[in-house]
Amino acid sequence: MAFRINIIPQNITITAQKNELLVDKIQETGINLSVYCNKKGLCGKCLVEIVDGELPPLEEREEFLLEQKNLEKNYRLACLYKIRGDISIKIPEESILQEAFILKTGIRSSIPLDPAVKKYHFRLKKPEISSPASLLEILKLHFKEKNLNIPLDQLKDLGKILEKSKYHVTAVVHKNKEILSIEPLNTLGQNFGICIDIGTTTLVMELLDLNTGKTIDILTEINSQVKYGADVISRISYALSDRKNQDELRDLILQTLNRMIVRLLKKNQIDPSFVYEIVAAGNTSMNHFLLGMPVNTLAAAPYSAVFSCLPELSSHTQEFKISKFGKIYIAPNIKSFVGGDISAGLVAVDLENKKGNFLFIDLGTNGEIVLKKGKKFIATSTAAGPAFEGMNISCGKLALPGAIYKAEYTDKLKTFTIENKPASGICGTGLIDLISIFLEKGEILSKGTIQNNTKRIAVTSSIYITQKDVREVQLAVAAIKTGIKMILKENQVTLEEIDGIFIAGAFGNYLNIKNSKKIGLLPKINEEKIIFIGNSSLAGARALLLSSQARKKIESLVKKIQFISLATKPSFQKYFINALEFQ
Amino acid sequence: MAFRINIIPQNITITAQKNELLVDKIQETGINLSVYCNKKGLCGKCLVEIVDGELPPLEEREEFLLEQKNLEKNYRLACLYKIRGDISIKIPEESILQEAFILKTGIRSSIPLDPAVKKYHFRLKKPEISSPASLLEILKLHFKEKNLNIPLDQLKDLGKILEKSKYHVTAVVHKNKEILSIEPLNTLGQNFGICIDIGTTTLVMELLDLNTGKTIDILTEINSQVKYGADVISRISYALSDRKNQDELRDLILQTLNRMIVRLLKKNQIDPSFVYEIVAAGNTSMNHFLLGMPVNTLAAAPYSAVFSCLPELSSHTQEFKISKFGKIYIAPNIKSFVGGDISAGLVAVDLENKKGNFLFIDLGTNGEIVLKKGKKFIATSTAAGPAFEGMNISCGKLALPGAIYKAEYTDKLKTFTIENKPASGICGTGLIDLISIFLEKGEILSKGTIQNNTKRIAVTSSIYITQKDVREVQLAVAAIKTGIKMILKENQVTLEEIDGIFIAGAFGNYLNIKNSKKIGLLPKINEEKIIFIGNSSLAGARALLLSSQARKKIESLVKKIQFISLATKPSFQKYFINALEFQ
Repeated sequence: MAFRINIIPQNITITAQKNELLVDKIQETGINLSVYCNKKGLCGKCLVEIVDGELPPLEEREEFLLEQKNLEKNYRLACLYKIRGDISIKIPEESILQEAFILKTGIRSSIPLDPAVKKYHFRLKKPEISSPASLLEILKLHFKEKNLNIPLDQLKDLGKILEKSKYHVTAVVHKNKEILSIEPLNTLGQNFGICIDIGTTTLVMELLDLNTGKTIDILTEINSQVKYGADVISRISYALSDRKNQDELRDLILQTLNRMIVRLLKKNQIDPSFVYEIVAAGNTSMNHFLLGMPVNTLAAAPYSAVFSCLPELSSHTQEFKISKFGKIYIAPNIKSFVGGDISAGLVAVDLENKKGNFLFIDLGTNGEIVLKKGKKFIATSTAAGPAFEGMNISCGKLALPGAIYKAEYTDKLKTFTIENKPASGICGTGLIDLISIFLEKGEILSKGTIQNNTKRIAVTSSIYITQKDVREVQLAVAAIKTGIKMILKENQVTLEEIDGIFIAGAFGNYLNIKNSKKIGLLPKINEEKIIFIGNSSLAGARALLLSSQARKKIESLVKKIQFISLATKPSFQKYFINALEFQ
Repeated sequence: MAFRINIIPQNITITAQKNELLVDKIQETGINLSVYCNKKGLCGKCLVEIVDGELPPLEEREEFLLEQKNLEKNYRLACLYKIRGDISIKIPEESILQEAFILKTGIRSSIPLDPAVKKYHFRLKKPEISSPASLLEILKLHFKEKNLNIPLDQLKDLGKILEKSKYHVTAVVHKNKEILSIEPLNTLGQNFGICIDIGTTTLVMELLDLNTGKTIDILTEINSQVKYGADVISRISYALSDRKNQDELRDLILQTLNRMIVRLLKKNQIDPSFVYEIVAAGNTSMNHFLLGMPVNTLAAAPYSAVFSCLPELSSHTQEFKISKFGKIYIAPNIKSFVGGDISAGLVAVDLENKKGNFLFIDLGTNGEIVLKKGKKFIATSTAAGPAFEGMNISCGKLALPGAIYKAEYTDKLKTFTIENKPASGICGTGLIDLISIFLEKGEILSKGTIQNNTKRIAVTSSIYITQKDVREVQLAVAAIKTGIKMILKENQVTLEEIDGIFIAGAFGNYLNIKNSKKIGLLPKINEEKIIFIGNSSLAGARALLLSSQARKKIESLVKKIQFISLATKPSFQKYFINALEFQ
């Protein structure tokens, strides 16, 4: 016999069979009821008001939750409520699943809030002489998972914590599989996480509230490893030149990150012991350096990484200054030099769920390209060199205040600098604009030669572009161009069949599409199909921090992604040489 | 359509449907085919000879295994072989599951060899430029489990190990869930484990070959904690009297155990890095001391332990001198003072699978009693005091050389000492014989009073029994007697309904049943029903070391066992006072 469930005020009526769970029926309607604890009766987030119909006696957990939340006696947990008759219910706003925004530029993407670290507040039963259960058993009574681990160090403190808090505790649980720690009293409000984009050049760190998914603060610093080379290849060489260098590189990045963590937390008055997880996304080499993993297999063909996916690591063992029971998750490396920054980028744009064919391009020292053709994913990487980061360019400079990031020519050359500071150099986007302008004006020929045998073209009184600079740009552009061309060709996709190109990378927003097309960096495709998504590595890290589901999905996607090694294809040389000419 | 499988020379014919797995069909016949790797095509232990019928092409893994084992090309792994037609097969002796003996005294029990730590030998694929998989991916390719963990430290060495061994490695795997380590070349033959009985007084350690389940060597030492008290209560008091004492107790036992490990391994020329697991069984207090777990909750009512079941811990973190990637498993505490020695004992006799009603009694400083009534298990503990270990007795002594362990009286008193050394004291079993003899002769009255107002009864010229000694024995006997009586009464089981009593404890073998009955230590039950099982704590630890299945079973049993706290029952005092009288 079927019963009717009336959801007011949405005015939805559904039918249910006897003993079906209310939570399942509500979810079937498309209402995003919160099931934070995975329907285990723990979190109290799926409370609904039973306006009419059977009110079963309150379960112990419900009693506790209603008391804590100061709710009327006609609220029940939808995950415990079994249908036994017709009912009318109201779903409070707080019981609807929260979503967090992931990408803010290009496309807006959001993700249901489902962090790996969740907190539950309990009043535990004191052991009794008639049945002196162990403290751990008493704690586990509240969980449905049988094999819930708990760190031994935390277990050693359990007796003291229970005594001190009179058995009122908050459990910090990781992926519903491991109790990270037990805190006295109610600390539900204090649940923080950090996501980091580990760039070769810059480190961007974001502090988030895991209860709301909201960003609290953000901080950027230079990767202090730059003193051993602007690009990963120089750093790999440095690491391999002496045994202690690898450790030094690890220490450098770790110290910078810990300094940033301390600053962020102090500024926002957050106790490090309430920060339970860090998600880091970086390229393959950065991921290896971060964990002190040997990079020798990355130094020579076939350029294998040591790892792709890793489970969450201990923050304590990895020496991060957050909760000593915390975890570190590394966005998985795809293959070889296509690393965690790219897998995070794929998460950020949710590429797997987009219908059609897409290119995902990260323009950096290493250009990474991922082609999605229907359900197939193919990745490749191409060494563009550091020209786009303003490196190896006579007057080049990182995208810092004073860098020329944009140039225009109408009657005369006009340059724009970051923060309007006096021009002190040229960064990647400025370089692309300038080369494009000089090509247009005929000061640079399509083969890249500077006209009239002048050795340099002046930009300002002290800033100029040399013949060598143009050659560097040619090489960088050719690498990307060849990569795009070959990945399409190898997979029999034409440019016309591409539904969109996502351009990731810090300089994305300032990149001039027309000029990029002119010098051949971007393919000749309808402008609307080109979407700049900014720092998608950070955005992806944020998504992976806020959603353990996202971790599962990227880990299974990463295994599916195929890889092409461009340089080993016989046609590579031909394509590359052709690509050296500016269109 | 059904096909016929003919197993020669057993001459068994069975039928199978198309695509059924050969391994499953063989197991259905009752033949104990080895499935060491859980039918994952890894271990090569289920190889059978296909004498007649379809020979599918060799899978890569089969090819490798046949080559390694030097077998003909008509051998196949039964776990990979799908039935497609009639076949005749031979099952080699090596493919039959090995069993290991667990109990050697009382009853013989054996267990199928299924250690938590298993080793697999592989030839890994080198990464290729066309698909530069990570080293970890390449390794995981060989396993069906997706989320196989590997310690980060081991991952750091992986590149070096693969290079050095030319990609021929042996993987050490724990419970098919975690790669403990990767060793260069073929180290299948080196797989060792240690089991330990952590007694309050003595530590017994056994070294086993995990490939065969055979004991290699055994070692006994005094628990160096005895200097802080003969019984657990004194040690708990010591631990609580100063903060550093708890650590001191931990260090004492750890150092002794590590010294024993080093001696055992040196003597048997085994490299500690090939010892991957330790299973320890001890009473609740010993388990807590071993892990440095606070004992304050054990010092006062309701006498709760901190933990009951724990997952395997890291040998490195716990500072044991075996492989740094090794594991420590602690036989689970049941409740309160009924600890891991008792749960191990239940494993040793496989009590769960015995039909009927049984008592399991561990006679020690703490007397633990478990009643099995049908499918129900009830446990209790009773403080017998250390009299049975020869402690708190004027001329008492541990069961060491020179101790009187047995006494007889025909025309005159005759005593027997351990190893026939000159008598230097009386141990538990000797004490029971002597008291029984003096009772019989009327030198001790049934109320325990020594006759004729003499203060002591001479045993030899220098060894005697005092009035206080008799009182100690009375208390010890009364505790056990009351425990047995009450656990039966509370659960409505009569002595007649008991099918057997298992007596555990080191002194078991020398205990005289008639004398024990006379003084009231053992109930008046048919002598054949009393089974001495010796050190069942060690035997159980051995079973738990050799069978991960046994761990699962005891962990689920332990959760089911009910507990009675005798002292809180109103009838306890009455029973106890009655029990003080001999008989």
